[in-house]
Amino acid sequence: VVLSLALYTGYAGHAYSQAPPEVLVKQRQAAMTLLGKYYGPLAAMADGKTPLTKEVVARNAGYLDALSRMPWDGFAPSTATAVSRALPAVFSNPTGFTSAQDELISAAAKLFSLATGADRAAIQSAIGTVGESCGGCHKSFRRPS
Amino acid sequence: VVLSLALYTGYAGHAYSQAPPEVLVKQRQAAMTLLGKYYGPLAAMADGKTPLTKEVVARNAGYLDALSRMPWDGFAPSTATAVSRALPAVFSNPTGFTSAQDELISAAAKLFSLATGADRAAIQSAIGTVGESCGGCHKSFRRPS
Repeated sequence: VVLSLALYTGYAGHAYSQAPPEVLVKQRQAAMTLLGKYYGPLAAMADGKTPLTKEVVARNAGYLDALSRMPWDGFAPSTATAVSRALPAVFSNPTGFTSAQDELISAAAKLFSLATGADRAAIQSAIGTVGESCGGCHKSFRRPS
Repeated sequence: VVLSLALYTGYAGHAYSQAPPEVLVKQRQAAMTLLGKYYGPLAAMADGKTPLTKEVVARNAGYLDALSRMPWDGFAPSTATAVSRALPAVFSNPTGFTSAQDELISAAAKLFSLATGADRAAIQSAIGTVGESCGGCHKSFRRPS
């Protein structure tokens, strides 16, 4: 464990906001990268581009349920001037940003709850709602690339 | 959903190995970054550097259980020549690499199964085993920085 501690020095402890801003940015971007990894195939299925595979839906929905909760503590005030695509609204409109986070968390949780069921239309709709929450938040809180 | 598909073009579909090598490397590194984010505080608790907080242990253990399964499809053969810290052994010793992956997955699953229980010594031991599986795999399959 000593080795591990050495590896993770700088952001050990559960007060994540004590991590350096560049670490927080890297961590939140990592969560976004993985949200994309596991959402992409579901979007393709919901749109009929690829067959809807129940085992993939169930696995990815579980991952998204966890990942949907991970980015947000990375948007600490200390990161307000860090280089990233976060818009100033992230820090000037925390209530709106929290609401947008909650939309994703709720949408992912709903998809996860449906993912092992038999209602394909509901699953497709829930996948769409997850995508809308991604896009809605990006529109308000992320700089276009 | 059309918007989402546009965002994720390039790695939609569940055959992740069709994603470009640089995307696969980014995704697997993202999973490692988040494994570090959520393991670090547990290592600090197991070593007595910070108080063992049951809600943090339970949450992080759940995240680690999911994250422990995410990096591996990113080590597709197409990434063998990509710029990363992966050692050639990743590709020349796939059996050993899979075994090392399974050690982390098993260790994280065991920690998750204990995390909501009352046996603090078992939790501390399970945290240590997760760290050993991280370090063991890095020693054999990751270039020192």
